[in-house]
Amino acid sequence: MLFNRGPKAIEQAKGISAEVSMTSTETAWTSLTERVAELEALGGVIQLLEWDQQTMMPSGGGPQRGTQMSTISGLMHDRLSAPEVGEWLSTLEDVDDPIQSAAVRNIRRDHDRAVKVPTRLVADLARASNDGFAAWMAAREANDFEPFHDALATLVRLRREEIAALGPAAHPYDNLLDQYDPGTTTAQLVPMFDRLRTELSQFLAEVGDNPGPSTVAGAWDIDGQKQMSNRVIDAMGFRLTDGRLDASEHPFTVGMGTGDVRLTTHLYEDDLLGGLTGTIHEAGHGMYEQGLPSRHAGTGIAVAAGMGLHESQSRFWENVIGRSMAFFEWLVPILEEQWPGSTHTASDWFGHANRVERSFIRVQADEATYNLHIIIRFELELKLLSGELSIADLPEAWNASYADLLGITPSTPNEGVLQDVHWSNGLFGYFPAYTIGNLYSSSFRYQMEADLPDMWTAVARGEFEAILDWMRTRVHDVGHLMDGPEIFRAAVGERDPVADLMRHLRGRQGALYGL
Amino acid sequence: MLFNRGPKAIEQAKGISAEVSMTSTETAWTSLTERVAELEALGGVIQLLEWDQQTMMPSGGGPQRGTQMSTISGLMHDRLSAPEVGEWLSTLEDVDDPIQSAAVRNIRRDHDRAVKVPTRLVADLARASNDGFAAWMAAREANDFEPFHDALATLVRLRREEIAALGPAAHPYDNLLDQYDPGTTTAQLVPMFDRLRTELSQFLAEVGDNPGPSTVAGAWDIDGQKQMSNRVIDAMGFRLTDGRLDASEHPFTVGMGTGDVRLTTHLYEDDLLGGLTGTIHEAGHGMYEQGLPSRHAGTGIAVAAGMGLHESQSRFWENVIGRSMAFFEWLVPILEEQWPGSTHTASDWFGHANRVERSFIRVQADEATYNLHIIIRFELELKLLSGELSIADLPEAWNASYADLLGITPSTPNEGVLQDVHWSNGLFGYFPAYTIGNLYSSSFRYQMEADLPDMWTAVARGEFEAILDWMRTRVHDVGHLMDGPEIFRAAVGERDPVADLMRHLRGRQGALYGL
Repeated sequence: MLFNRGPKAIEQAKGISAEVSMTSTETAWTSLTERVAELEALGGVIQLLEWDQQTMMPSGGGPQRGTQMSTISGLMHDRLSAPEVGEWLSTLEDVDDPIQSAAVRNIRRDHDRAVKVPTRLVADLARASNDGFAAWMAAREANDFEPFHDALATLVRLRREEIAALGPAAHPYDNLLDQYDPGTTTAQLVPMFDRLRTELSQFLAEVGDNPGPSTVAGAWDIDGQKQMSNRVIDAMGFRLTDGRLDASEHPFTVGMGTGDVRLTTHLYEDDLLGGLTGTIHEAGHGMYEQGLPSRHAGTGIAVAAGMGLHESQSRFWENVIGRSMAFFEWLVPILEEQWPGSTHTASDWFGHANRVERSFIRVQADEATYNLHIIIRFELELKLLSGELSIADLPEAWNASYADLLGITPSTPNEGVLQDVHWSNGLFGYFPAYTIGNLYSSSFRYQMEADLPDMWTAVARGEFEAILDWMRTRVHDVGHLMDGPEIFRAAVGERDPVADLMRHLRGRQGALYGL
Repeated sequence: MLFNRGPKAIEQAKGISAEVSMTSTETAWTSLTERVAELEALGGVIQLLEWDQQTMMPSGGGPQRGTQMSTISGLMHDRLSAPEVGEWLSTLEDVDDPIQSAAVRNIRRDHDRAVKVPTRLVADLARASNDGFAAWMAAREANDFEPFHDALATLVRLRREEIAALGPAAHPYDNLLDQYDPGTTTAQLVPMFDRLRTELSQFLAEVGDNPGPSTVAGAWDIDGQKQMSNRVIDAMGFRLTDGRLDASEHPFTVGMGTGDVRLTTHLYEDDLLGGLTGTIHEAGHGMYEQGLPSRHAGTGIAVAAGMGLHESQSRFWENVIGRSMAFFEWLVPILEEQWPGSTHTASDWFGHANRVERSFIRVQADEATYNLHIIIRFELELKLLSGELSIADLPEAWNASYADLLGITPSTPNEGVLQDVHWSNGLFGYFPAYTIGNLYSSSFRYQMEADLPDMWTAVARGEFEAILDWMRTRVHDVGHLMDGPEIFRAAVGERDPVADLMRHLRGRQGALYGL
């Protein structure tokens, strides 16, 4: 254990001498931004620890990695909830500067949450998440809900305690939404999801038993897919000098500042599009991270505005762009270059990419039915957290929802209530972000078509710069100066996202089914 | 920035309830070991950040990585130097338990150092190291000492200030040695290095202009070298489930607990042995890290006892084992399997691996002359830090030493005084560890031959278990329960390491030169 000398100490030394002639507001701002810069650096370290764990770490590193992550998380919690942070925020409560005022709002939100939830509850939730994941794994192994029952009951109970600790809100569920997608409210989601539920049910009824377009079958070597994937995301605008693409079991993206954004993907030799859509999805997240306003580092503004907006970026590139006919027109010559002798046409791929299928597993669902999977989870979460639905009744309620909305009934827990990892980690309030992302991305599409009349011609030529610029200006570069819903509104005006999503789905998938 | 709930909080909650019925000694021990466990976790994170930087990080990640590392280093310094650590240590000053007493000694040493050096000096040293590295790079680029002069002068001045701040010692240089190899003293090194200097000069004079054995030339594909390297270090006992081997510009090893130890190497298509000896060297470091007593985690004992002992492990495997005839007898069939048609014999490789060459560059030096490179640096450091030698006179003094000891004069600064990165980072007091490692490893050899009479027969069969067990018991598993020199003595008794090193060099290299 050597004695470490870091530039951190320089900052401290600077801070001390610089404070002499400052006003209390200036001092508070300097101290606050130093603390936030520290929290951002530690947050980046957590991201790297997670990335490494899933891509590089030898199996023996597990226990030590757990300790490293909990140590950093614990330090972050202590440094965020410290009383001096509250004092700096109070001093800065009435600042006029829009940057400072947005920073104070963002940091206040995180600080207050860290302060309000008692340490005992934090510890209980951490333990329950660990136990919950283990119980879920055991339940998955047995394909039986029972081993998960008690752990899930504990998690729901603790999350209800957390909601209570966080204090009054328009709706209790808002206290959860707020952690993942600040600015989004239950009052706004319920009617929006209700409308979407009705519209999608109607759409599915119209599709009926129509078998739709054929699938594309074949074999594509993994090395070739890697090369092709890098070429595609590079053309879209993901900067490979400021990021990288690796393999992992479950695709994900981590961002450690705009200069180091890492994507992972899972490629399949017999399913080219399964891998490619996942890669493009992550690149969408990655381009958002690379486009955040790094000039505001240390203010709590140079970060994503929420998971709804984050998903809108991944979904926009994966679906709006990556499942369009224009995209496949550009892609087909690239595939022919990589795999000489390929005979699948752009229409073949377009059909394959836009099939409608009532299926059990969310992560494999098509663009339309995906949202029904989310709405089912949202509605079940509301009932679980209000106490209206007991844990014991959850599997049956799950199956009833699938029968009702998708017309199919899971035959085992693994293809039903046990399929997602989220609840096992106590992640309630997160699922809506996926459908919010789909809604936003459709409105982005139509607003963009109005602003960039040549956009589809450009896509067919592999020219994505104007599209990325549009996103950079209206979304990425705003950072967290506003919350996600405000950024969405500023970008698209009065557009109706439910109408836009249905228009998008009917124009794409619907057309293939003769609707 | 989400609110992180970590098991750290659980530990905290546990700590609070457990303290109730404890004595003050028990409380201090619990608090101290929790703090040290935290520091060990953060130290592991620093290691991962460095490994990632040199193997995986995209170029754009540099600035953010600097902030991450200085943030963690700063937190470590704060948490190590905090007053409560001093209080816990005082409470535990008179404990009888040997584990606790060794822990208190180790942590006291680090804590006192962190407290004694003023924050201003820590900041100045951090800045001077950054500036020094940049100036050194510029000087290397220009192949001119001048651009490095002022930065080096600042670093020497600051290190002298640090020595003064650390307080009285038998020799001022001890305050530097103590940071890298606690227990080693200048009073012990000077006469030992003097003897070695004389013996090696005599040896070189005897070698004279004898051209020695031939080199082995050829081409070996990098993928094949990777497979072969993994096979060799796996056979030696480096656990690949608890570690990995990657490529980097400069080979190094990081350890994050015994379950995650990462080696890097640099392979050359036209120099098989250049890559392999480097890989085995790092595996030697890695097996030490994998063999540390993890049962003592959180006490400051489950760590390496110092850099001298660490280098003894890398040098032992690289040189004592990896340049032996028995090793090449085992290796040749493996090479023939990997590269069918290989015709080089074990004797060819043994000769190639044990040539004596008076050369300019330390990292490329043979086993005997390597120590003269180190002695030159040690002697120059003593003079620089005492003020006897000015920075302006350093290049000339460097060249005079090379002419004197090796009979060659560098023709440019890059092959002379500018070759090592160490001084540019302020690393004075580190170089001796390399030769201490060579000395220790020779005595380990002869003690091991006495304890394991069949050792060389086993090596020729690729059986390294008994050798590794010997090291595990006498060195690795001791951790930092004693300092390096004590561990060495306990392992080899009254052996004379200078005599052992010369016996080893004369028996190997000397024999090839007819001595």
